[in-house]
Amino acid sequence: MIKAGIIGATGYAGGELVRILMGHKNVEIQWYGSRSYIDKKYYQVYQNMFQIVEDVCRDDNLEELAQQVDVIFTATPQGFLAGLLTEELLQKVKIVDLSADYRIKDVSVYEKWYKIEHKSPQFIGEAVYGLCEINRDQISSKTRLIANPGCYTTCSILTAYPLVKEGLIELDTLIVDAKSGTSGAGRGAKVPNLYCEVNENIKAYGVASHRHTPEIEEQLGYAAGQQLVINFTPHLVPMNRGILVTEYAGLKRKADGSLPAYEEIKAVYDKYYAREKFVRVLEQGVCPETKWVEGSNYVDVNFMIDERTGRIIMMGALDNLVKGAAGQAVQNMNLLFGLPESEGLELLPCFP
Amino acid sequence: MIKAGIIGATGYAGGELVRILMGHKNVEIQWYGSRSYIDKKYYQVYQNMFQIVEDVCRDDNLEELAQQVDVIFTATPQGFLAGLLTEELLQKVKIVDLSADYRIKDVSVYEKWYKIEHKSPQFIGEAVYGLCEINRDQISSKTRLIANPGCYTTCSILTAYPLVKEGLIELDTLIVDAKSGTSGAGRGAKVPNLYCEVNENIKAYGVASHRHTPEIEEQLGYAAGQQLVINFTPHLVPMNRGILVTEYAGLKRKADGSLPAYEEIKAVYDKYYAREKFVRVLEQGVCPETKWVEGSNYVDVNFMIDERTGRIIMMGALDNLVKGAAGQAVQNMNLLFGLPESEGLELLPCFP
Amino acid sequence: MIKAGIIGATGYAGGELVRILMGHKNVEIQWYGSRSYIDKKYYQVYQNMFQIVEDVCRDDNLEELAQQVDVIFTATPQGFLAGLLTEELLQKVKIVDLSADYRIKDVSVYEKWYKIEHKSPQFIGEAVYGLCEINRDQISSKTRLIANPGCYTTCSILTAYPLVKEGLIELDTLIVDAKSGTSGAGRGAKVPNLYCEVNENIKAYGVASHRHTPEIEEQLGYAAGQQLVINFTPHLVPMNRGILVTEYAGLKRKADGSLPAYEEIKAVYDKYYAREKFVRVLEQGVCPETKWVEGSNYVDVNFMIDERTGRIIMMGALDNLVKGAAGQAVQNMNLLFGLPESEGLELLPCFP
Amino acid sequence: MIKAGIIGATGYAGGELVRILMGHKNVEIQWYGSRSYIDKKYYQVYQNMFQIVEDVCRDDNLEELAQQVDVIFTATPQGFLAGLLTEELLQKVKIVDLSADYRIKDVSVYEKWYKIEHKSPQFIGEAVYGLCEINRDQISSKTRLIANPGCYTTCSILTAYPLVKEGLIELDTLIVDAKSGTSGAGRGAKVPNLYCEVNENIKAYGVASHRHTPEIEEQLGYAAGQQLVINFTPHLVPMNRGILVTEYAGLKRKADGSLPAYEEIKAVYDKYYAREKFVRVLEQGVCPETKWVEGSNYVDVNFMIDERTGRIIMMGALDNLVKGAAGQAVQNMNLLFGLPESEGLELLPCFP
Repeated sequence: MIKAGIIGATGYAGGELVRILMGHKNVEIQWYGSRSYIDKKYYQVYQNMFQIVEDVCRDDNLEELAQQVDVIFTATPQGFLAGLLTEELLQKVKIVDLSADYRIKDVSVYEKWYKIEHKSPQFIGEAVYGLCEINRDQISSKTRLIANPGCYTTCSILTAYPLVKEGLIELDTLIVDAKSGTSGAGRGAKVPNLYCEVNENIKAYGVASHRHTPEIEEQLGYAAGQQLVINFTPHLVPMNRGILVTEYAGLKRKADGSLPAYEEIKAVYDKYYAREKFVRVLEQGVCPETKWVEGSNYVDVNFMIDERTGRIIMMGALDNLVKGAAGQAVQNMNLLFGLPESEGLELLPCFP
Repeated sequence: MIKAGIIGATGYAGGELVRILMGHKNVEIQWYGSRSYIDKKYYQVYQNMFQIVEDVCRDDNLEELAQQVDVIFTATPQGFLAGLLTEELLQKVKIVDLSADYRIKDVSVYEKWYKIEHKSPQFIGEAVYGLCEINRDQISSKTRLIANPGCYTTCSILTAYPLVKEGLIELDTLIVDAKSGTSGAGRGAKVPNLYCEVNENIKAYGVASHRHTPEIEEQLGYAAGQQLVINFTPHLVPMNRGILVTEYAGLKRKADGSLPAYEEIKAVYDKYYAREKFVRVLEQGVCPETKWVEGSNYVDVNFMIDERTGRIIMMGALDNLVKGAAGQAVQNMNLLFGLPESEGLELLPCFP
Repeated sequence: MIKAGIIGATGYAGGELVRILMGHKNVEIQWYGSRSYIDKKYYQVYQNMFQIVEDVCRDDNLEELAQQVDVIFTATPQGFLAGLLTEELLQKVKIVDLSADYRIKDVSVYEKWYKIEHKSPQFIGEAVYGLCEINRDQISSKTRLIANPGCYTTCSILTAYPLVKEGLIELDTLIVDAKSGTSGAGRGAKVPNLYCEVNENIKAYGVASHRHTPEIEEQLGYAAGQQLVINFTPHLVPMNRGILVTEYAGLKRKADGSLPAYEEIKAVYDKYYAREKFVRVLEQGVCPETKWVEGSNYVDVNFMIDERTGRIIMMGALDNLVKGAAGQAVQNMNLLFGLPESEGLELLPCFP
Repeated sequence: MIKAGIIGATGYAGGELVRILMGHKNVEIQWYGSRSYIDKKYYQVYQNMFQIVEDVCRDDNLEELAQQVDVIFTATPQGFLAGLLTEELLQKVKIVDLSADYRIKDVSVYEKWYKIEHKSPQFIGEAVYGLCEINRDQISSKTRLIANPGCYTTCSILTAYPLVKEGLIELDTLIVDAKSGTSGAGRGAKVPNLYCEVNENIKAYGVASHRHTPEIEEQLGYAAGQQLVINFTPHLVPMNRGILVTEYAGLKRKADGSLPAYEEIKAVYDKYYAREKFVRVLEQGVCPETKWVEGSNYVDVNFMIDERTGRIIMMGALDNLVKGAAGQAVQNMNLLFGLPESEGLELLPCFP
């Protein structure tokens, strides 16, 4: 039985970790960390867990936690883990960090986009970027620190990855227009996240400045074998869960000037995803919808070729709290402990 | 392995049956009946099941179905099963009927409220009203026909049952004000169920005439040991899932003219529900919310005593597609086949 | 031109006052009071007013404000106006108070339900309870202080008023089950009002303890000519605007034991409302829906007689920010200044 | 007094026409055409109009209608007007057509994208594309036929127009990612528009094939003085009203290789829109939100320059039923009859 601790257990991603781990037959949650609710029963914060979780919330004592558990999930604000992580901790416990602290290899890029100083850059090199479908080989029982990918980034990267990897698109034309449900904004009490402000409304935000931009660029850059810059525009949508990305890129033309056929592109997606349990390449003409993956660890992807403009429109959908956060974290944990990758993640999408 | 067939597999309740049964380790779905989509892949109707369900939709041939499966779930319009049920069928297969055809023992009451003739009243007597928490003892491997309770009725009955059973309220004062999400209206293409008609709106409907009224009256009448009439008013709420009932009744005063104390009422609820897995009596002062049970088979109940008016306000919440339909159907199926009652129903509520 | 000042101009009710007064041809807003946003452009708080309102937000200086304007609207928390009101102020300016400070005549009732000390009870007697359809005669150019009714109370009272006034129902059986959109909870940054907490959810709150209870009781008590106690249960609904009330009461039977006929009850409603512009008694069988009054000053009411239980179910719907707050405040202002009562309130309901 | 007739008065755009025209002091609605509801009271279809509109719905008899009114609004399916329009009609009455029948000058383009034969191409040349901010000069009392622009197109065109007109962007890089509320899908009873299908969901549709594409291309082509092709991707958002477009284009660099500064681009927007009542260029850094224009005839636009990619991100928001349909139709009508362009359109956005 793997003993797990969660720091930030009362945020939305933390709550989803609890839901998923409670259904995981190899895991026992030992520590519900939540600075805001110390000594309060966890179910008094999340009443859905009444008669299911009896534990109280505890503070963020990483030292003590490391003594008691095998793995720590940190669902915490940026900078939290970076400020506390030590070699001693990593010798005692594995860490899956749901924040951005160790996702970006170039510390100056991190500090520029996040506007905070990185307090423990010495661990960045060691951290594995835990996008399992791409970096599975780098994650094993020897791995100590996982940088769990962001919600937007998981969706954005997986949607474009096969074409970038195979060199089929003009890299400098890639644009990602992303739409997210409101749980992505967290559980902080802020006016812009009030029901009446979000409901019956849609807006872009963080235009040309959202922090997930360099993360997407870095990872797709590895796939491309060269640096790239993209436009990434997130939007806030009046729904609880779900991210949809619509990505645009110029398709490289073939020697004869023609565009690749549908079947050729489909074959490339299948090459990378046909054996992936959690990535579903939809049938021709079917557009991904966030509702079809809600509550599950799936990413649905598809594409459309526009002969008129020579562009391909790629689309992807996932549940930001599952594949975009807690589900992927558990997927990484499974790899860390040598379990089947989908253990505890056989969550069927719930409709409607 | 229990072989199951579903008639009406592409309605919302049918879809939820598929979701739950797919996660049930003792069940295999053999037949996805859906007259509207015959020969279409099931996942083309419910894209969430892509790469999960490969079967095609089939017609409603009960005869053939009875040859192939151990249990049939009928998630069909009123009158469908009543028009087709025969002794031969019941000798071959167990049936869990999610329609109202066999819920009401007095056929004239059924015909009056549903405004259709009952075509097979001879089976009404045999059918067990499958509200497991109350009628568990009547359901066994010998039972052939389950009348699965309605969504509003399950919530309305369980919320008031302990007090009615123990004779603590004035029966002729009972009022049920119910609020339901829109999946309860089904998947039929009707203008009143369009997004723009339901969204940002709330209304009562079926006032003093909703068909779930006599069902609640009959079942609470058994508990009370006498007939009763109630007011039942359903409302349509802009959300997908969930039913909340708010029930009002005059509390009987004690010999000294005083009202029962909180603890006394709580003890009565606990007497009936403390050992029930799927009924949670909340802590004092906590009001049930539909969101806290979403996706699960739980019913959350609680109450408040109003000293000023002498009334008790009882509240209950459930997911209309789970405990109010498909979850309860599976709970009944488990009893029919001697399985643990909660098998396949360990669904944690999903928040947010 | 009437000069108006608003204290609390950046709350939801304050914002609606701005919207309505901007379209009122006899009014000029002179003062946008908002302690939280002093010196900020009003449109930077409510971007819908960009290029429409150029003023900045100002503090709550009632003294100075009284010098500059003819009428002050206080859309402020309970206790604010009571703590500052003086005879000097009332000699200079008319006040329409959207808080509860002067709604309840018995100060001890106010203090018990609101749990604050009333700082200026000497003005309670003078204040007119501004439910225009009932108290129109008491509001004239001599009136100095209007206690603008609450949102739930306006809807609850108007829905039952004709029957209470005419003595047609058993007073001790009256139950009000109310459902409100989330703008009623205000614009404060609190976790329970976040999008993800409210969306896809419904709950009761303030059961047997909501502050609008004594206000309804007092006003219906005047109509009845005797005190009454009621059950009032509010619910939070995932929509921005709108209140629906469903009210239950036993109908008094006639000498021959029969219940009044539909036409008799309808005639009573018409007696009070046929000439009221803002109260619409719907046609037989049509249930009020909040969407049909959204953005307007209408209250839609109707009823259904249940022969089985002997009860009448009364229903009412209004827009909590218009007839439930700002619209009614303007209606009162019109009466205070001798304008046509509906001036500036010819707002057509917006659908969908 | 202008006498107006509406064909398609019970669709969502038709209903909005009624709401706006009822508040227009120079217009009287003479004819509520609705084939589906002939002889039914209009308010029985749209209960918000109870006690406001007493007329009954009538059939689509254009001949008779032309005798009785000065202007006909056709809020009808594609092909309806084209199939009935005659020279005789146009000699008697002005027509504002909210369908696409006369928007596209090249009939073969229309027939290709709409997949129907155009039955009266002889009138296409005469029709004025009624995007008032651009084509105002072409609309006068001599104009007989207005092709009222589409909802997506109005938003897409106005957002990019100044930059296209001034030649500041690379035309072949223009991408329009659009998001619409569900009223845009109309009031037809179809499963994909049911509440439970749309709610808590977002999806793209009509990818690379939506019919508004050629309309945007044609109009922006006039501005550019050359043909262009774009990518246009609409998305369905769970809200009633509102369209948001996010547009991407490469900025042309200046001689020195630098990008234009914010102020330069702002000046270009101001050149075209500073005197436009209904187009609001927001302050730097403020992103348009659909909620801020709801219920009004405004279009809010803004932009962000991304130095990293050399692209400009343009954003626009409007209410699809007002500026995207009925409001713009009335704006056109005002021009046709020599009224102030904003007459009847002083609708303040409603928040929340």
